[in-house]
Amino acid sequence: MELIDGKATAAKIKEEIAAEVEQIVANGGKRPHLAAILVGHDGGSETYVKNKVLACEKCGFKSTLLRFEDDITEEQLLAEVDKLNKDADVDGFIVQLPLPKHISEQKVIEAIDYRKDVDGFHPINVGRMAIGLPCYISATPKGILELLRRYNVPTSGKKCVILGRSNIVGKPMAQLMMQKQYGDSTVTVCHSRSENLKKECLEADIIIAAIGRPDFVTADMVKEGATVIDVGTTRVPDATKKNGFRLNGDVKFDEVAPKCSFITPVPGGVGPMTICMLMMNTLSAGKKEFYK
Amino acid sequence: MELIDGKATAAKIKEEIAAEVEQIVANGGKRPHLAAILVGHDGGSETYVKNKVLACEKCGFKSTLLRFEDDITEEQLLAEVDKLNKDADVDGFIVQLPLPKHISEQKVIEAIDYRKDVDGFHPINVGRMAIGLPCYISATPKGILELLRRYNVPTSGKKCVILGRSNIVGKPMAQLMMQKQYGDSTVTVCHSRSENLKKECLEADIIIAAIGRPDFVTADMVKEGATVIDVGTTRVPDATKKNGFRLNGDVKFDEVAPKCSFITPVPGGVGPMTICMLMMNTLSAGKKEFYK
Repeated sequence: MELIDGKATAAKIKEEIAAEVEQIVANGGKRPHLAAILVGHDGGSETYVKNKVLACEKCGFKSTLLRFEDDITEEQLLAEVDKLNKDADVDGFIVQLPLPKHISEQKVIEAIDYRKDVDGFHPINVGRMAIGLPCYISATPKGILELLRRYNVPTSGKKCVILGRSNIVGKPMAQLMMQKQYGDSTVTVCHSRSENLKKECLEADIIIAAIGRPDFVTADMVKEGATVIDVGTTRVPDATKKNGFRLNGDVKFDEVAPKCSFITPVPGGVGPMTICMLMMNTLSAGKKEFYK
Repeated sequence: MELIDGKATAAKIKEEIAAEVEQIVANGGKRPHLAAILVGHDGGSETYVKNKVLACEKCGFKSTLLRFEDDITEEQLLAEVDKLNKDADVDGFIVQLPLPKHISEQKVIEAIDYRKDVDGFHPINVGRMAIGLPCYISATPKGILELLRRYNVPTSGKKCVILGRSNIVGKPMAQLMMQKQYGDSTVTVCHSRSENLKKECLEADIIIAAIGRPDFVTADMVKEGATVIDVGTTRVPDATKKNGFRLNGDVKFDEVAPKCSFITPVPGGVGPMTICMLMMNTLSAGKKEFYK
């Protein structure tokens, strides 16, 4: 069994990005610039955005954080998005989700110029990904592809079972894993209504669990030699932890790991890759890799 | 075994559309208007476009056919697309594919205003479909959903195996069949590289074959009681036919049909539904159902 170390991989990728940025700047190119909009004071969002800004520093990017209070109107926020769309110095930007209830997240996402949409949530990027055109791929699916690639996990022709059909993980993951240029796998998507979920899992060479149910995948659902990618990050109360909870994956790690060829831990697996993939997308934006 | 009659279903739907159009017009509304651009003199394209114009008549739509010679430049064609984008009387329009080699099909598709993209090929519609938002769904997948719905084929929680991963059929079909609001199925996509294609098929409650290999699906690949949807339409030489060929599906119909709950024939199954679904999308465009 080999542990897929997302933390180490993410650190390595950030070093690679930093080296490339220094090369670009040394050659007279522009330093990539990521902007982030943060509305309100949600604790989780604050942490995420802080870590994104820190990652920008590690990668040698310029970063700008724009903060607004909870009572910003949808119209005002859309005007801020428009400013960033038009700001030639900003290569890419994100609007940290969730947004206050009086603002339509979908409207805001669709207002972002898709050429600067480094989160990959704009329908144009989602659509281009689905049909195999160059585009920003959202962080979690992109991070999983990167882990599979860097650990040389065989995917072509293999059976890949995806648990969950969310817009953020399950659906894009399925679209990517089935494409020749990415996973080239035989992809099955299971969800709450699936009649034979356990049987599908037992036949899988690769399981990607993204349903948000702690310890859902048990040893009796996993074939000997399978690769298991755990996207779950449920907060479970844990008195032994300083903050009173621990992050629990969708996979019962202790009993599943011994059967696996490769497995990601939680935390330290897929999680650390997501911000890192936002950095990769920002580098692509700076290089105008997908769009002029 | 029940035969799914696409021809009769399509005829019925066109009658339903015509009745709704007359209602709209009687209430002082606008008659839906579909425009089509046809470049060159490809025999297949001529026939398709002619049939689309005829279907418009059946549905009570206004239709406009714009013809251009093979030597139209990409720039000129894009200008024609722009004219239709701006023509307030045109509710929806299509550019018949394929286009001559000197014109980028993708560029033309992306130039179409997504609000008039009744073919559903624009990345915005593809992306919105993937994440479950209202949009134009392309004709073949939409037609298959409509057949499954009208014949009350159970799909929720069932195992649906899709053969083929084309942008036109396999991929969108997978995205639709996995969504709660459409198929709600456990979806598996198999293709040329799949190691266990036959096994997957044998476990399927629904098989949707779209690989373009005549008679590929044989009786030994199909479970008793399965539903089989045949999207294949390969031209196979046939001396007994007036035009020298017949349309051959991906399914060996004679031996597979007796095992099925439901099956579509070729021709007369999925085929007749496609133009009909273009009509449904045009009606939606006229009613501004998805976009203002």
